[in-house]
Amino acid sequence: MADTKPSNPNPKTLPKVLLLEPPPIYLHYESQFSLHFNFLKHYNSPLSLPEFLAEVNANDVSAILATTLGPPITASTVLDHLPSLRCIVTSSIGVDFIDLDECRRRNITVANAADVFSADCADSAVALLIDVCRKVSNGDRFVRSGNWSVSADFPLGHQLGRLNIGIVGLGSIGSRVAKRLAAFNCSISYTSRKQKPSVPYSFYPDVYELAENSNVLVLCCPLTDETRHMISKEVLLALGKGVIINVSRGSVVDEKELVRFLLEDHIAGVGLDVFENEPSVPKELFALDNVVLSPHIAASTDEAFHDLYEHVKANLQAFFSNKPLHSPIV
Amino acid sequence: MADTKPSNPNPKTLPKVLLLEPPPIYLHYESQFSLHFNFLKHYNSPLSLPEFLAEVNANDVSAILATTLGPPITASTVLDHLPSLRCIVTSSIGVDFIDLDECRRRNITVANAADVFSADCADSAVALLIDVCRKVSNGDRFVRSGNWSVSADFPLGHQLGRLNIGIVGLGSIGSRVAKRLAAFNCSISYTSRKQKPSVPYSFYPDVYELAENSNVLVLCCPLTDETRHMISKEVLLALGKGVIINVSRGSVVDEKELVRFLLEDHIAGVGLDVFENEPSVPKELFALDNVVLSPHIAASTDEAFHDLYEHVKANLQAFFSNKPLHSPIV
Repeated sequence: MADTKPSNPNPKTLPKVLLLEPPPIYLHYESQFSLHFNFLKHYNSPLSLPEFLAEVNANDVSAILATTLGPPITASTVLDHLPSLRCIVTSSIGVDFIDLDECRRRNITVANAADVFSADCADSAVALLIDVCRKVSNGDRFVRSGNWSVSADFPLGHQLGRLNIGIVGLGSIGSRVAKRLAAFNCSISYTSRKQKPSVPYSFYPDVYELAENSNVLVLCCPLTDETRHMISKEVLLALGKGVIINVSRGSVVDEKELVRFLLEDHIAGVGLDVFENEPSVPKELFALDNVVLSPHIAASTDEAFHDLYEHVKANLQAFFSNKPLHSPIV
Repeated sequence: MADTKPSNPNPKTLPKVLLLEPPPIYLHYESQFSLHFNFLKHYNSPLSLPEFLAEVNANDVSAILATTLGPPITASTVLDHLPSLRCIVTSSIGVDFIDLDECRRRNITVANAADVFSADCADSAVALLIDVCRKVSNGDRFVRSGNWSVSADFPLGHQLGRLNIGIVGLGSIGSRVAKRLAAFNCSISYTSRKQKPSVPYSFYPDVYELAENSNVLVLCCPLTDETRHMISKEVLLALGKGVIINVSRGSVVDEKELVRFLLEDHIAGVGLDVFENEPSVPKELFALDNVVLSPHIAASTDEAFHDLYEHVKANLQAFFSNKPLHSPIV
């Protein structure tokens, strides 16, 4: 999809989109977005939302571009002030910050980032896993420190193809992780809300059983009330001296317990792209060589970022053209 | 294969194997190896090889366990002193330290490590590639330094699936790299001595054409007179702002040119497991964030190391039982 609009259209002729907080994709592609939509930027204003809408004469706004970085979108915080709202487009996969039941009641459609990030997220999960097993970052530190010239004694890693991988959540990301790791000859199992009839991997009905039968848990599930702190002390005990890879959300893991298991050497290693209180990371982890830390970039590449811009734009354009959204949340 | 021999056999009753220099696999599994063979350890002796052989009464030795860490095996250095030699078993894939023509003339069979290391090597090549493209080690440094809490500004990486991968040497390792990267949706091309009729990847007859048509070169070829400094200034220019991954041998690359290209920002990044003067690494690389350095561990895991022990033992046992070797060099 190319930007075929004339440059510098009159913003007043463009469809209005409310921005409570700007998502990174908006800031990155602001000039391109502005060719297509008239963004009302509440985040630049000291006024309350109703005051702001009155001032910009936009009580009729029908669409929001929303982000996990903004406020929760509930009846009282946002929806009650926007009687004409019909569509919320997010730039994230997760929509846990939106009261979906309330949106459904009010006939507001919600669209997310769909699988724009799935390949990158899966690639990152595999990258973190190989890094932990084969000590890539650790080896890089070893060479850069100059220690290799002093001592050839770097510890051996473990072969990927001998691992039983347990994938938690076999959705858009998890199934791509499975496909990639199968090419490394790993054995793949999974747990998810329902068994998938068409996949060749072993299914376990809960995460305990999966952990008991796996050397590695790869967390690819969304954060929900059910998955919060799902990786508990009990699951870690069931896993034994295995590996945890997390590219979902920090709060899926009981981080305090995970740190304790690491410090007491009850777990072989972890690769974490997400944390409970980002960007704050438990400092105890910084000294550990069996840990790989990543600043929540699993989903982020230049290419996916551009795809996301096109996807968000296409969802908003579809809405304003009375066409079905590309990735509605069912 | 289990070790079924009785413990502590009399070494004098065991077949003699000459060790010029001990390979790591021997040092690691010395007690197990010693159940099966009587090792004559020239490396422990100040004597010349003929003097040593005379002293231990072993002019009739018929087998050597050899390593790249030992002396070159040529007519004058070794072969002339061992008229009864019939077999050389190495613990490496590479046999460039052995004069194969001379061995052939003397009817001495040479066996290498076969594909014991191939899966690990391929895994490492992929690990280095994802690390360079997705900035894994770099991100780990960023988080450990505490900078994430200060600034969320970590640069985006590049999506693996958009890359054209050029594999140099589609043998046991290269074909496994291709299989793995195909699962990431990469486009795969290769060059090798001959086009392989049965593979689905594009063939280029030389490394220049491959470089011109690739974003990444993954070096998986053996070091020979033909491949020494194959990755020259001209090939780097043909590649343009791409990535080099090397899990073969350091001298396949003109390291001085590579460092210059990196310092002058003419290449996007490199992942190196091998170097021209190991364990010495050009210090200019230590400050670069688009470089991933690995202490020649691509082939090394606990599991492959054990497989190698079994493989070396099986080759020697086959020789002493007058059976065909498991991995003769043709």
